[in-house]
Amino acid sequence: MKSYRKELWFNIPTRRAFINITSQVEDCLRASGIQEGLVLVNAMHITASVFINDDERGLHNDYETWLEKLAPHEPVRQYRHNDSGEDNADAHMKRQVMGREVVVAATNGRLDFGPWEQIFYGEFDGGRRKRVLVKIIGE
Amino acid sequence: MKSYRKELWFNIPTRRAFINITSQVEDCLRASGIQEGLVLVNAMHITASVFINDDERGLHNDYETWLEKLAPHEPVRQYRHNDSGEDNADAHMKRQVMGREVVVAATNGRLDFGPWEQIFYGEFDGGRRKRVLVKIIGE
Amino acid sequence: MKSYRKELWFNIPTRRAFINITSQVEDCLRASGIQEGLVLVNAMHITASVFINDDERGLHNDYETWLEKLAPHEPVRQYRHNDSGEDNADAHMKRQVMGREVVVAATNGRLDFGPWEQIFYGEFDGGRRKRVLVKIIGE
Repeated sequence: MKSYRKELWFNIPTRRAFINITSQVEDCLRASGIQEGLVLVNAMHITASVFINDDERGLHNDYETWLEKLAPHEPVRQYRHNDSGEDNADAHMKRQVMGREVVVAATNGRLDFGPWEQIFYGEFDGGRRKRVLVKIIGE
Repeated sequence: MKSYRKELWFNIPTRRAFINITSQVEDCLRASGIQEGLVLVNAMHITASVFINDDERGLHNDYETWLEKLAPHEPVRQYRHNDSGEDNADAHMKRQVMGREVVVAATNGRLDFGPWEQIFYGEFDGGRRKRVLVKIIGE
Repeated sequence: MKSYRKELWFNIPTRRAFINITSQVEDCLRASGIQEGLVLVNAMHITASVFINDDERGLHNDYETWLEKLAPHEPVRQYRHNDSGEDNADAHMKRQVMGREVVVAATNGRLDFGPWEQIFYGEFDGGRRKRVLVKIIGE
């Protein structure tokens, strides 16, 4: 069994954003030399997500609006987590809706994807350096 | 290390439905010959889910009502994704709540499940052929 | 390839609670002797979650309030699942928002975590014995 590990670093200037990281994960799989296995991609921070969906600007706009409706940033005082001086309680909730991680099959050395699947880093509390972990095991 | 791959195909006539695929995944595990490992089951489409919950008609009815409240299909014009002529933006949201994939342990050649765990394909934009991927690695 | 399996048991006296199980999962990884691999941690019951987030009391308070807003327990008669005499339909929904499982990388024999990642058991229908499965594969 082979294994491979890499951290992808991000520093998103805005509070929220969706970044397509599919090609970076493909690069990891190529570098690993693994043909058949499982690829884990997870946010290493608890106010960010990794998820798979469509690379379509209108949809990302809809996600932003929808997540803000489900877990509004304002008023920040509605959240007990923010009593400690934080203002990111909403980000901890948005991350639960969108998920921490994805597991993708590796087949013949490629990400085994349907026609529209793309991997995204979802930032909900930007403005500082944060990481995504790529871990691959297989043969 | 062994690996196994199979696609399960669906063509759901209605817009939304929940289909129990547990026995199909069990068939895959048996065919793989793998005794100890991990079973990845994921939707290959971004308007569908794979999730684990109860096979109970009342609950599925409740999920339908609840998801429609969290991310309503109508009015379709509320979503920017639908400006391109689509009408399935809500399906991209419902899929995030219910999830893309499950990872299940294989132990002694069986799906290592609690008493009520069943695997479902969740369709949120039916009327066409769509796929689920089963990938198993182990020994 | 090595594999390891353990069940963690819980009997939460209240209906809902969040329990930090990180050290128990670390114990499993140590006992497995696996250095490089993947660690699956999943609820074996469909009214409970395993998720990764912050060990902060204010945030858990916020999750409780937020989940109750997204999927209220009362009135129990609003759910068709409860027609059968159950009162836990809301728990099946809360579990979907928070997730069934996490997959964590094992690197150099340790859980490969960012600075604040902690693993929680989320109980949404307590008052009886329930289990979490830890399955590890690797080398």
